[in-house]
Amino acid sequence: MNRKELIQNIRKKKSFLCIGLDSDINKIPPHLMETGDPIFEFNKQIIDATHDLAIAYKPNLAFYESGGISGWKSFEKTINYLKNFDDVFIIADAKRGDIGNTSKQYASAFFEHLKVDALTIAPYMGKDSVSPFLGFDGKWVILLALTSNEGAFDFQLIENAKSGKKLYEEVIETSQAWAGPDEMMYVVGATKAEMLADIRKLAPDHFLLVPGVGAQGGSLQEVAKYGMNKDCGLIVNSSRGIIFASRETDFAEKAREKASDLQKQMADLLG
Amino acid sequence: MNRKELIQNIRKKKSFLCIGLDSDINKIPPHLMETGDPIFEFNKQIIDATHDLAIAYKPNLAFYESGGISGWKSFEKTINYLKNFDDVFIIADAKRGDIGNTSKQYASAFFEHLKVDALTIAPYMGKDSVSPFLGFDGKWVILLALTSNEGAFDFQLIENAKSGKKLYEEVIETSQAWAGPDEMMYVVGATKAEMLADIRKLAPDHFLLVPGVGAQGGSLQEVAKYGMNKDCGLIVNSSRGIIFASRETDFAEKAREKASDLQKQMADLLG
Repeated sequence: MNRKELIQNIRKKKSFLCIGLDSDINKIPPHLMETGDPIFEFNKQIIDATHDLAIAYKPNLAFYESGGISGWKSFEKTINYLKNFDDVFIIADAKRGDIGNTSKQYASAFFEHLKVDALTIAPYMGKDSVSPFLGFDGKWVILLALTSNEGAFDFQLIENAKSGKKLYEEVIETSQAWAGPDEMMYVVGATKAEMLADIRKLAPDHFLLVPGVGAQGGSLQEVAKYGMNKDCGLIVNSSRGIIFASRETDFAEKAREKASDLQKQMADLLG
Repeated sequence: MNRKELIQNIRKKKSFLCIGLDSDINKIPPHLMETGDPIFEFNKQIIDATHDLAIAYKPNLAFYESGGISGWKSFEKTINYLKNFDDVFIIADAKRGDIGNTSKQYASAFFEHLKVDALTIAPYMGKDSVSPFLGFDGKWVILLALTSNEGAFDFQLIENAKSGKKLYEEVIETSQAWAGPDEMMYVVGATKAEMLADIRKLAPDHFLLVPGVGAQGGSLQEVAKYGMNKDCGLIVNSSRGIIFASRETDFAEKAREKASDLQKQMADLLG
């Protein structure tokens, strides 16, 4: 999906909501455990109940790979199911980052074989770990910049003695020489929304993928205030707050309610 | 495998060689493509031909995951096959790094289900992305510090304005508060062997996993000169230089020759 189509979908659905399919086998409703593929069944019902409210879905690979081969099957089935909806942006939250020849393998697996729209990538290994993912038509790299977890403060805020910039700012600035806002986005945690204002100065046109609204505590209003640009420029993710709203048979319905709450707020913010 | 056993194996085999199973389907000998699982068959023959010369094997997950479900099967079969040799240290080169609850899933998958000895982890997301992998008896985290690729220079050498230390030095120093040298190692590229001398000041007792000897050009003598400690303290990896020494039916024999060359040099350096 290219930038123009993404923006069209945001306007059509009046939403910039991404639903994180962190489908932990230990947390999904017990009645699904009797089905042949509980994780896929869970995802399918969540997707069916919410795809008019969300513009993107983001399965986190860790929850699938941890199940070995059966987990990979659930992941592939989920991606294939999502492809039934042509107004949905599919993000594989893989946080990969390896040297050139191995990154090429990943790029091929995710963009050409699975055909997801975007992949999250870790920046630590630099340009040659990122550039193999670039140059695929309508495909995106979403680079980790400022994450929303506690450990983000261990290294991401280190200030460069030469430039005075923090490490996450260096990541955003340096990587703009590798790709433009039509094929790169940044992960920017919402734990401190004011930081989004500074990030917007560095990257005025890029889309930002913002985790940490909902269960992790960020405020949607603050994120929009500091992070929105003329094309919206935001994809705000919520995972547990939506998908685990209930563990009963009504889980998909409750997920829709939570997604709908967020979508309504987003419609106001976009309006 | 615990530290004592690892050191015993190094002494017994007079080797600190790790063979990187970067088993790219596009590079393995053509005659193997007729077998049911070419990647596993390739790995099995390499392992059979070299396990008395190498103390460790390191499959890079990217080469397996890129094959989807069939790649995962090859990976699991390779790990299970390696477990036939109790004097072999198994490193899953996964370069993972995610928030706490997802890292727990990975730790369980790799340490409890697959039972590998060690996992490579990316440091960017900080402590809570690493600590879920700690505390497993006889299991290791190998943290990326200074990698051997060109892009390593993009961020890893950034100098911290407060401490005067480079980012990779911060990673080594900060992470020592998380775990000691009995369950943590560091990836340190060999492209500039003199840097190993400074790293030894920061981490005198830790094992260092050194990629980049062989195809990527580092010198084994230099690495040993600057990096070795009283327990050896080095695991030196070679991938393509060994496993792709020949693409003919003699590939395993040629791999053994290359591994043997390195092992002989290592025996001298240990002596």
